[in-house]
Amino acid sequence: MFAEIITIGDELLIGQVVDTNSAWIGHELNNVGVEVLRVTSVRDRQNEIVDALESAMKRVDLVIVTGGLGPTKDDITKKVLCDYFDTKLIFNDAVYANIKRILGNRISMNDLNKSQAMVPEKCTVINNRVGTAPICWFEANNKILVSLPGVPQEMTTVMSEEILPRLKNIASLGNIIHRTFLVKNLPESILAEKIASWEGQLPDSIKLAYLPKLGIVLLRLTARGTDENVLSDLLNEESLKLKSILGKDLLIDSDSPLEIILGDKLKNLGLSIATAESCTGGSIAARITSIPGCSEYYKGGIVAYSNQVKIDLLEVSPAILSAKGAVSEETVIAMAKGAMKQLNVDCAIATSGIAGPDGGTVDKPVGTIWIAACYKEKQLTLKQEINRGRAMNVERAANNALLLMLELLETGKN
Amino acid sequence: MFAEIITIGDELLIGQVVDTNSAWIGHELNNVGVEVLRVTSVRDRQNEIVDALESAMKRVDLVIVTGGLGPTKDDITKKVLCDYFDTKLIFNDAVYANIKRILGNRISMNDLNKSQAMVPEKCTVINNRVGTAPICWFEANNKILVSLPGVPQEMTTVMSEEILPRLKNIASLGNIIHRTFLVKNLPESILAEKIASWEGQLPDSIKLAYLPKLGIVLLRLTARGTDENVLSDLLNEESLKLKSILGKDLLIDSDSPLEIILGDKLKNLGLSIATAESCTGGSIAARITSIPGCSEYYKGGIVAYSNQVKIDLLEVSPAILSAKGAVSEETVIAMAKGAMKQLNVDCAIATSGIAGPDGGTVDKPVGTIWIAACYKEKQLTLKQEINRGRAMNVERAANNALLLMLELLETGKN
Repeated sequence: MFAEIITIGDELLIGQVVDTNSAWIGHELNNVGVEVLRVTSVRDRQNEIVDALESAMKRVDLVIVTGGLGPTKDDITKKVLCDYFDTKLIFNDAVYANIKRILGNRISMNDLNKSQAMVPEKCTVINNRVGTAPICWFEANNKILVSLPGVPQEMTTVMSEEILPRLKNIASLGNIIHRTFLVKNLPESILAEKIASWEGQLPDSIKLAYLPKLGIVLLRLTARGTDENVLSDLLNEESLKLKSILGKDLLIDSDSPLEIILGDKLKNLGLSIATAESCTGGSIAARITSIPGCSEYYKGGIVAYSNQVKIDLLEVSPAILSAKGAVSEETVIAMAKGAMKQLNVDCAIATSGIAGPDGGTVDKPVGTIWIAACYKEKQLTLKQEINRGRAMNVERAANNALLLMLELLETGKN
Repeated sequence: MFAEIITIGDELLIGQVVDTNSAWIGHELNNVGVEVLRVTSVRDRQNEIVDALESAMKRVDLVIVTGGLGPTKDDITKKVLCDYFDTKLIFNDAVYANIKRILGNRISMNDLNKSQAMVPEKCTVINNRVGTAPICWFEANNKILVSLPGVPQEMTTVMSEEILPRLKNIASLGNIIHRTFLVKNLPESILAEKIASWEGQLPDSIKLAYLPKLGIVLLRLTARGTDENVLSDLLNEESLKLKSILGKDLLIDSDSPLEIILGDKLKNLGLSIATAESCTGGSIAARITSIPGCSEYYKGGIVAYSNQVKIDLLEVSPAILSAKGAVSEETVIAMAKGAMKQLNVDCAIATSGIAGPDGGTVDKPVGTIWIAACYKEKQLTLKQEINRGRAMNVERAANNALLLMLELLETGKN
C-alpha cells in the first residue's frame, strides 16, 4: 500500500514550526508495510489544500492529513474536507462529551470549543483520547483519507492507538523491512568505496542508503516484497557480508540513538556514570536522561561552564587551567576524574571546547573541543577539530563523547 | 515572489530524518519578501522528482531543491536536473579544487569525490564554501531553480552567503512582515474568545495565526503588501490594540526563544544564574548554553538526578527528602538555594518531578513536576501537573522554569 502525507498550516511554510509529524508518521507507516511516497505541506488556504488533496488521492491509496483542526478561525481543514467529500458539518454528541472531558475543570466551554464538536457527516469519527479535535476517517473509491490534529502528542497517540491498528487489519499490505548499521570513523565517500562491490551485488529487492550524521554514518538497508521470511533471510545474508567487510568500523547494527546503546551497555555491565560538561552545556546529560529508566545508571552531572565552577565543583587544578587552558586534554581528564569522585560513579564523560561563533584563537580555533571518557583507571581522549557552527559543534561533540565512552567500555574492561 | 521547496531523500519519507531545512528556508525567504506556498518531500526516484519539479515550476517563480547531492549512488538529483533542463554533466575545475580543499588532509580523493565535480552545463555554479557538493542555479522561462545540498549546515551557509543576497537583488519582491507575541497562562480557545472582536476588525492585509506550544501560545500577525512603511504602521497600530487587550498575559512581543529573552534580561540586570535540574536532566542548561555569549551570565549547573547527588552537591537536607520527597516544593527550593550557594550566583532555577512513563504514585502521578526560581532572597514556585509523555513533560517544565525566572525578575526586583 502506498501513502502520502499532507501537513497543513501557515506556520510550517514560514518556518515558525518544524514539521516533525511527517517523519514520525513515515516511520510508523513503514513498520506496518505502508510506503510513503510524498509529503506535502500547504498553507491554510482552501484552494491550496484541495489541490494537494486531489493530487495525492490520485496517486495513492491512503492519505494522512494533519493540522488545521484547532478551535480558531485560521483552522479550516474540516470545512475543506466537507467540500471535497461533498458533505456537511453536523453536531456530534460523543465528540462534544470528549471535549468537555478534556477541558475538565481547567477552563469553561465556549463557542469555539463547541464548534470542535461539529464533524463531517460522511466519515467515521474516531475518538481523540488526549485532545479536543475529532479524528475523521473517510473512505471513497477504495481510497482512505484520515484527518488528524497537528499537535504532535495528540497525533502520535491517536495514530498509535486508533489508526495503525486499523491499517494493519486491511489486507494486501506489502512488507518493508529496514536494517540500519552505525558506522564510525569513515567519511561517506571512503565508506562507499569500501563497500562498492558488495553494494553492486545487492539483489533488486534490497536498497542501500547513506545517512551521514556528525561523526557517524548510518547505512540503511531496505527490503521490499511480499514474503516476510524471504526478505528477512535476504537481509540477514547481506548484513553478514557487510559486517565482515566493515569489521571494527561497524559500531552496532541498530539505528538506536547512541544514548540508548550506551545505557544498555552500562546496565549490562552494572556500571554508573556521570557527566562533566563545559561547551556541551548539559546536552549530553539531557540526551542520557531522555531515556526512561536511566536513573539505574545515570547519577547526575556538573555543567562547569565557568572556570571557577571547574575548580570549585570538579576540583580541576588552577595550575592545569592556567598552564594548559580550559580547552585541553589535561582539563577534560581532570573534569571527568572530578565528576567520578564528586558523584561517586564508575565512569564519566567530560567536554571542554570552543563551540563558537566567537572565542577562537590561532592555536585553538572555533570548533576545537576536547573530550574525555574515564572508566575506573582507564581513559580515552579525543580532540574534535571541525567547525560547523555552534549547534552542530555541540551535537557532534555529544555524539563523539557517547561513542568514546562506548569504545572505552568495549576495549577497557577491567 | 512565490516559491516552493522540494526536499529529496528516502530518509525523509521513511522518517529516519526530520526535514528541518524547509522551515529554515521558509523563514529566511519570508524575510526577503518571498512567500513559500508549498513544501514537497519526495524519494530518490527520477520520475517522482521530475513530477514534483514540473508541478512546482508551473505554480511559482522560484523553486529551492535540497538533497540528493552526495557522492554515493543513491543521490541522483544532478542527473535528474540535467534531464529536466535538457543538458549534460561536465567537469568543473573550480568545483574540483573546492572539493580538494574541503577534504584537505582528512582523506584522499577517490572517484566518488571526483564525481562531485561534474555539474550541469546549463547552470550557474556557485561555490560551496563549507562542503563538497556544488550549488546549481538554473534560470529558464523567467523562473529560477536552485539546487542545494541537504546537509543543514551546508545549506544554511550557502543560502545565507550566496542565495539570499542574489534573491534580494531581484526586483519586484513583495513585502511580508511578521510580528509574534508570546502569551502565557491562556489556553488557545480562551485567548481566541478574548481577542475575537479585535481579530474581526483586522484589515485584509493582516492575517492572524495561533501557535500553541506547551504552556505558551504564540500569536503571529502577518502583513502582506507592496509598501513596507504602510504595512509597518498598520502592524504597529494593531499590535498596540492587542497589547492593551492582553495586558499582563502578553509576556513579550517577540518570537525569540525563552532562553534568549531570559539571557537578555540577565545581561541587562547584570545578574548571574545557575541551574539545578533533576527531571529536566540538563535540558534547561542545554537551552541556556545554546545561546552564544551566555557565559556572561550562566556559570553552570548541577544535574542532580539521584537523591544522593541532591544531598552531596546541592546540600538538600535528607530530612526534607524523607519528609516531603524529592518531588516537592521544599526540595526544589532547597535545590535552587544550594545551586546559588555552590556556584556563587544571583539566581537559580530548579526542577524535580516524575517525567514518566513510570514512577508515578496516587499522590504524585506521572507529570507532577515542581519548579523553583530563586533570585537573592525572593522565590517563586510552580507545580506542573499534566502528562503528555516524557519528552513533552520535560520540555514543558523547561519552558515553565524559564518563564518563572522571567516572572521573578519582573516582579521580584530587589
